[in-house]
Amino acid sequence: MSKPVFVLNGANLNLLGVREPHIYGSTTLADIEAMCRERAAQLGIALEFRQSNSEAVLIDWIHEAIGAASGIVINPAGHSFTSIPILDALKVFRWPIIEVHISNIHRREPLYHRSYISYVATGVIAGLGAQGYVLGLEAISEMLRQGEPAG
Amino acid sequence: MSKPVFVLNGANLNLLGVREPHIYGSTTLADIEAMCRERAAQLGIALEFRQSNSEAVLIDWIHEAIGAASGIVINPAGHSFTSIPILDALKVFRWPIIEVHISNIHRREPLYHRSYISYVATGVIAGLGAQGYVLGLEAISEMLRQGEPAG
Amino acid sequence: MSKPVFVLNGANLNLLGVREPHIYGSTTLADIEAMCRERAAQLGIALEFRQSNSEAVLIDWIHEAIGAASGIVINPAGHSFTSIPILDALKVFRWPIIEVHISNIHRREPLYHRSYISYVATGVIAGLGAQGYVLGLEAISEMLRQGEPAG
Amino acid sequence: MSKPVFVLNGANLNLLGVREPHIYGSTTLADIEAMCRERAAQLGIALEFRQSNSEAVLIDWIHEAIGAASGIVINPAGHSFTSIPILDALKVFRWPIIEVHISNIHRREPLYHRSYISYVATGVIAGLGAQGYVLGLEAISEMLRQGEPAG
Amino acid sequence: MSKPVFVLNGANLNLLGVREPHIYGSTTLADIEAMCRERAAQLGIALEFRQSNSEAVLIDWIHEAIGAASGIVINPAGHSFTSIPILDALKVFRWPIIEVHISNIHRREPLYHRSYISYVATGVIAGLGAQGYVLGLEAISEMLRQGEPAG
Amino acid sequence: MSKPVFVLNGANLNLLGVREPHIYGSTTLADIEAMCRERAAQLGIALEFRQSNSEAVLIDWIHEAIGAASGIVINPAGHSFTSIPILDALKVFRWPIIEVHISNIHRREPLYHRSYISYVATGVIAGLGAQGYVLGLEAISEMLRQGEPAG
Amino acid sequence: MSKPVFVLNGANLNLLGVREPHIYGSTTLADIEAMCRERAAQLGIALEFRQSNSEAVLIDWIHEAIGAASGIVINPAGHSFTSIPILDALKVFRWPIIEVHISNIHRREPLYHRSYISYVATGVIAGLGAQGYVLGLEAISEMLRQGEPAG
Amino acid sequence: MSKPVFVLNGANLNLLGVREPHIYGSTTLADIEAMCRERAAQLGIALEFRQSNSEAVLIDWIHEAIGAASGIVINPAGHSFTSIPILDALKVFRWPIIEVHISNIHRREPLYHRSYISYVATGVIAGLGAQGYVLGLEAISEMLRQGEPAG
Amino acid sequence: MSKPVFVLNGANLNLLGVREPHIYGSTTLADIEAMCRERAAQLGIALEFRQSNSEAVLIDWIHEAIGAASGIVINPAGHSFTSIPILDALKVFRWPIIEVHISNIHRREPLYHRSYISYVATGVIAGLGAQGYVLGLEAISEMLRQGEPAG
Amino acid sequence: MSKPVFVLNGANLNLLGVREPHIYGSTTLADIEAMCRERAAQLGIALEFRQSNSEAVLIDWIHEAIGAASGIVINPAGHSFTSIPILDALKVFRWPIIEVHISNIHRREPLYHRSYISYVATGVIAGLGAQGYVLGLEAISEMLRQGEPAG
Amino acid sequence: MSKPVFVLNGANLNLLGVREPHIYGSTTLADIEAMCRERAAQLGIALEFRQSNSEAVLIDWIHEAIGAASGIVINPAGHSFTSIPILDALKVFRWPIIEVHISNIHRREPLYHRSYISYVATGVIAGLGAQGYVLGLEAISEMLRQGEPAG
Amino acid sequence: MSKPVFVLNGANLNLLGVREPHIYGSTTLADIEAMCRERAAQLGIALEFRQSNSEAVLIDWIHEAIGAASGIVINPAGHSFTSIPILDALKVFRWPIIEVHISNIHRREPLYHRSYISYVATGVIAGLGAQGYVLGLEAISEMLRQGEPAG
Repeated sequence: MSKPVFVLNGANLNLLGVREPHIYGSTTLADIEAMCRERAAQLGIALEFRQSNSEAVLIDWIHEAIGAASGIVINPAGHSFTSIPILDALKVFRWPIIEVHISNIHRREPLYHRSYISYVATGVIAGLGAQGYVLGLEAISEMLRQGEPAG
Repeated sequence: MSKPVFVLNGANLNLLGVREPHIYGSTTLADIEAMCRERAAQLGIALEFRQSNSEAVLIDWIHEAIGAASGIVINPAGHSFTSIPILDALKVFRWPIIEVHISNIHRREPLYHRSYISYVATGVIAGLGAQGYVLGLEAISEMLRQGEPAG
Repeated sequence: MSKPVFVLNGANLNLLGVREPHIYGSTTLADIEAMCRERAAQLGIALEFRQSNSEAVLIDWIHEAIGAASGIVINPAGHSFTSIPILDALKVFRWPIIEVHISNIHRREPLYHRSYISYVATGVIAGLGAQGYVLGLEAISEMLRQGEPAG
Repeated sequence: MSKPVFVLNGANLNLLGVREPHIYGSTTLADIEAMCRERAAQLGIALEFRQSNSEAVLIDWIHEAIGAASGIVINPAGHSFTSIPILDALKVFRWPIIEVHISNIHRREPLYHRSYISYVATGVIAGLGAQGYVLGLEAISEMLRQGEPAG
Repeated sequence: MSKPVFVLNGANLNLLGVREPHIYGSTTLADIEAMCRERAAQLGIALEFRQSNSEAVLIDWIHEAIGAASGIVINPAGHSFTSIPILDALKVFRWPIIEVHISNIHRREPLYHRSYISYVATGVIAGLGAQGYVLGLEAISEMLRQGEPAG
Repeated sequence: MSKPVFVLNGANLNLLGVREPHIYGSTTLADIEAMCRERAAQLGIALEFRQSNSEAVLIDWIHEAIGAASGIVINPAGHSFTSIPILDALKVFRWPIIEVHISNIHRREPLYHRSYISYVATGVIAGLGAQGYVLGLEAISEMLRQGEPAG
Repeated sequence: MSKPVFVLNGANLNLLGVREPHIYGSTTLADIEAMCRERAAQLGIALEFRQSNSEAVLIDWIHEAIGAASGIVINPAGHSFTSIPILDALKVFRWPIIEVHISNIHRREPLYHRSYISYVATGVIAGLGAQGYVLGLEAISEMLRQGEPAG
Repeated sequence: MSKPVFVLNGANLNLLGVREPHIYGSTTLADIEAMCRERAAQLGIALEFRQSNSEAVLIDWIHEAIGAASGIVINPAGHSFTSIPILDALKVFRWPIIEVHISNIHRREPLYHRSYISYVATGVIAGLGAQGYVLGLEAISEMLRQGEPAG
Repeated sequence: MSKPVFVLNGANLNLLGVREPHIYGSTTLADIEAMCRERAAQLGIALEFRQSNSEAVLIDWIHEAIGAASGIVINPAGHSFTSIPILDALKVFRWPIIEVHISNIHRREPLYHRSYISYVATGVIAGLGAQGYVLGLEAISEMLRQGEPAG
Repeated sequence: MSKPVFVLNGANLNLLGVREPHIYGSTTLADIEAMCRERAAQLGIALEFRQSNSEAVLIDWIHEAIGAASGIVINPAGHSFTSIPILDALKVFRWPIIEVHISNIHRREPLYHRSYISYVATGVIAGLGAQGYVLGLEAISEMLRQGEPAG
Repeated sequence: MSKPVFVLNGANLNLLGVREPHIYGSTTLADIEAMCRERAAQLGIALEFRQSNSEAVLIDWIHEAIGAASGIVINPAGHSFTSIPILDALKVFRWPIIEVHISNIHRREPLYHRSYISYVATGVIAGLGAQGYVLGLEAISEMLRQGEPAG
Repeated sequence: MSKPVFVLNGANLNLLGVREPHIYGSTTLADIEAMCRERAAQLGIALEFRQSNSEAVLIDWIHEAIGAASGIVINPAGHSFTSIPILDALKVFRWPIIEVHISNIHRREPLYHRSYISYVATGVIAGLGAQGYVLGLEAISEMLRQGEPAG
């Protein structure tokens, strides 16, 4: 499988390591990208790693992924709980989608409990910090290896 | 770290591979145990792998884990959505707890959307099939390696 | 069809005839078993008649029924309203399931109005007292005679 | 007991065997009437078997039943979920009332889960197809034989 | 003002004096009509007193009242809680509308607490038994005398 | 019956005729007292007519009424929707209680739809303006004449 | 396609042009029928145009349409929000169903926001006044021309 | 009227014909634009046809329309259910607004049932596929011809 | 009264003094038993003091209490909030039942606010720590002394 | 500790023994005061025993208690369910607060199920009649003896 | 404008500086009055500054303000969330009303999120501590200067 | 303090003075900027005054403010009620945040009642028109002067 996996990061994640460190720890998004690239190399997966604060840009990237990616790891951050347009965009993507949340959203305020994106994700990983991204890559790698359908 | 990780399986999981294969696939619980043992060996982790249909037995095992385990991977199955006693038992355990669901519970009927166990789990992995257990073990291994607090 | 029908009784039904007789009447569970055995004999059906206060035991019996029974008549009593694990267990059973309630649960307090078991039962009979069991057996007998699918 | 049992059928049941056969099967209302008449004859019960699409006509028939019937088997169809006037009419009837639904309404859309009629029915039978009517007649026959109060 | 007041009675009120006398007492609808006629005569009001179990007939009578009546006293009975078509019909009537309930509906089951008709009635009288009709006539008489607008 | 009827008026009703005249009209509380006194004289009823903005004073007056009044007409105004203590006080009063609202509360904002007092009132009259008080007196007079129980 | 399109109008629509003209305008139902007939003629469609205040009559007409009509344009008026029996009747009809509302129901009180009929209609047109009917006919004509399935 | 009608398309509609064709069919947005242009030419209407995945761009275009357009046909797609800013923008536009949905949103998951945009639209057309746009243009054309106010 | 009082403890209470000491303090269940035995001796009450993590075992003990106990002090712990079977079992017991919670459950998360057991308990004591058990014994002793009915 | 315990009684409790004796029994508030004084004397506690129907007076007394009392036993009666001002006042008091209800409020109508005061009380005792006050005094005495913090 | 501004303070605010200082700080009500008087003097506004724990007294003061005040600054404290009578009283006042909360109520428990008083206030200031009062005075001064209507 | 205060304006506020003037008045955003600059100059505060219709741009500006601003005055307009990403961005900002709404949002439709932004704002000012911005600046100036923490 030569198509890359897209790793898409939503609003405010560019601040990671700055923002509410008592919840998210001091790891930065660059640290996460490095961890992802290292593991992707081991798994033989190409990587597109991006971040945007804009719902529209995230939608555009998901559209781009349709023909160009073999899987999506997405941390939709605050838009998880509010964006039906992102949910709609992901519905068109026919390969594995792993939704990642750095914190366990179910232990936070009720506001953060119900993610629209989970309705369409193949799998969901929450609360495992930066490692969640790495496990998401492993999960996609394994699914692609088995030719397992997306959902 | 010489204490084992407990992998606890709840109600009806003894039927895995028989029950609703269009949702859970044909992997049996014995297959999952084998996958877990293989990965645990690679990670240098000892393993207690158990299943019960009884809420009370699951509570007893969690109590046993308090002094005896370095982490818990738990698939609470149907009790995820109804058991406050299991939630209470897990609150006493001070090491990492990874909640695993074979299917993505958020894509099923609303009945299966809200897990009480997620309120106390360190991390949650759903929808990645049997691989979710393996990723859970990796997550615990990594947390223990970093001395990261449970939650 | 030589496999027996399982008649499974849930929590507190061993007290029948003692407990709240103004709701359930003075018939005991032994009386109900006798009525069921008499009618089963007429219909040429073998019978396994059991009661337990334990959710886990009920689940075990349902698992046992999977290969061993041609139908299940179940009065899940108090667990009707709270047990997703019993619901999950019944989902695996591919033959007729008749849910029986001695009283009409819809005339009681709201607590007793919504049975999880009804989401998976082939049919539901409520409010007909001990006779509900007998009618349940007749219904299963008729379904098996017609080779009608379970639901 | 020489008064007949009224078997009342609500809206759209005249289309039975035509409408959504994947839910209700191919049995027609005439088939059901024949099954009821055959069993009623065996039980020594006279029968009034009627159908109307009109809530008002159903209410009139229930009023008529007050002095004239020894029991009512009613399939209120779509009005089960919306008609407080039918509920009020049935409250005056002091003999057994058996509510019958051909399909198991609890397995359908939430719209069809809560029947007002169940609040006043002596017993409820759902999901047993046309046989539900026959079992309803048997239940009434048994209640009348025992002089059991209606509810 | 020579146009009559319409006194309209809804479903099941023809059974008054028979049905649930512990709630409604033994007064019949004929008794109520007599009381209304006596008071109307004193007030110099002509009267149309009618009852129907049919929502459609009630709507027709309300339409008839538009050009023909100077006020409506209506006891919509069970349709109070379910009929938006009757609510819609009353919206067109530009003279006083008094909604009457024999029992105090707010003391009954929650099912009977919220009347759609109250959203459009000029006034509501509940719990005063048959006398509620008479007071309703007095209220309309007074409003017409003062040329007070309907609502 | 020589005991007086208490007519109790709640918070802000001293402003009647000033406050929101587009809802309540220009009648003052003194006008209402005069109308009540005139009708009470005709009916041979003694009258205690009072107003307070204080929930506690209203409770004291209801306590006073227990031994001293033959009926209560109460317009609890804003406390209708919030005061369980007034509800509790009225529960002790064993004679007729008529709850009066000048406007039809069901046509106002949802905030004003559910009156706690209606749960204990014998009857409720709403939307008939000042006349509602007079009709309330008539209703009590009639009930006392018939020796009808309060509720 | 020689079968006619049924245009069915529900409760109170006979009053159109009289009732609440600030919401519905002064167009009468006869005006709408004329507009429909003119456009149907242009489109080569036969027309059955009817109105009833009775839910039962509407159900009968829908039953009649099953074998006799190539499409239904229905304005269910007040029954849109309350009638499961009409919903059930329409489920049997296998050709295009266009639900029309003269006003935009979503801009009215919440009471009028959720139409049961929309759960089964092929398409919904609201807020376009009498023109909604004409557009509904055009839509059906176009669907029939394309042999597009109903829903 | 020489100002154009704006036809605005929201998030993901650029994928039309690709995305979930079992729901939306194979028509592309270019096809729809062609259909609109053809019908607009017949009606003598100028057209601005645009699509964006960005809520902010949609708001900008609505602002642009305020002085520049004689009507808006808008398919707000996923933002229908989540965007109060688009709702606010449309409130300023004083000419006809037709909301179009390709599928009947009321037949989809509850998530898609309540559109904020409907609270401000003049009219709503859902479930008529690409034809909905054409009918929307016709509706606006007719309204402008009659000088009918927007809502 | 020579029958003992049963003091029944539910799930996880065997961990008392270990589990969440910031909520429950460091008192162990053995400490509580000692306190109870001391006070029971003073009051002349025999004691059965037991703990189980199993709902089924608790039900069995309640059944045993029916003929054997003069009162029940029960701390149902996590099952308070989920177990209708325990509620049903207690309904049969006709002597005083005191429900005890060590912490004030109303100050904890909403999950712990509504106890099913309170619907059937004679009295409820919460937030008084281990002393709550002792006060429960005193309350039962006083009730038995007065021959006061259970509730 | 020489500061007294305040025993505060809310609205309508002056009527105790009169009001709804089937719920509260025939004990008067003077009886309760006597019981409290007797037990307080045994425990060496000074007592302020007061009752008011006024929320404001209760707030004043709680303010007074701040510097003057070592504990509060409060039966807030009807204000339990409605008064955030009393809740706020109690938040300032830093010694034990025992909320007492004579009846078990959880067995009454839902209106009486949720007490605001429980959110701030140290402990809650319900359903033990007048004895609840005595047990409340014992609990405070014990807490003060142990120097246990209030909450 | 020579009429004073009324600054009204509700329940428990006499304790300010004592009560929950981690939320409200150590400023006392006398400090706030001093700040208000200083700023009022600068603005040329006369001031009536009062506090009461009694809802009835607050209502009386609002009534007094109707003819006597040019504006009201009100901190209704705990009654904000429960008092419809205060809401009703304020509805009569036709000059600016500024509702002030010392803390940002939206960041506290849900109990404190919805203020009834906000439904009628001209403006709301929350979370700015004692300064909120001063800003409220400035806002009223500015409104009076501009002759801006109250709301 | 030499860092500027950011005054951020959300969607549609560029239309101020045009849009719904009956709610917001005729003041334009340029007028507000002028008022802010005048008052800021008096207070010795530097100002960044910006507006965007884009949620993403607002997030970027808040990120920019983290290192560059001493306070934020934000009118999030329509995004107040829908944007968790903006809420998340503001959580990182550790200086005073004043949320301003021109109208009193609590007097508008329920849609506009609950602002997510209020969960994180230091203070909230609503309903004071353009003056709200000026008061917000004063509040920040005062807080900075006192070195008061943000929340």
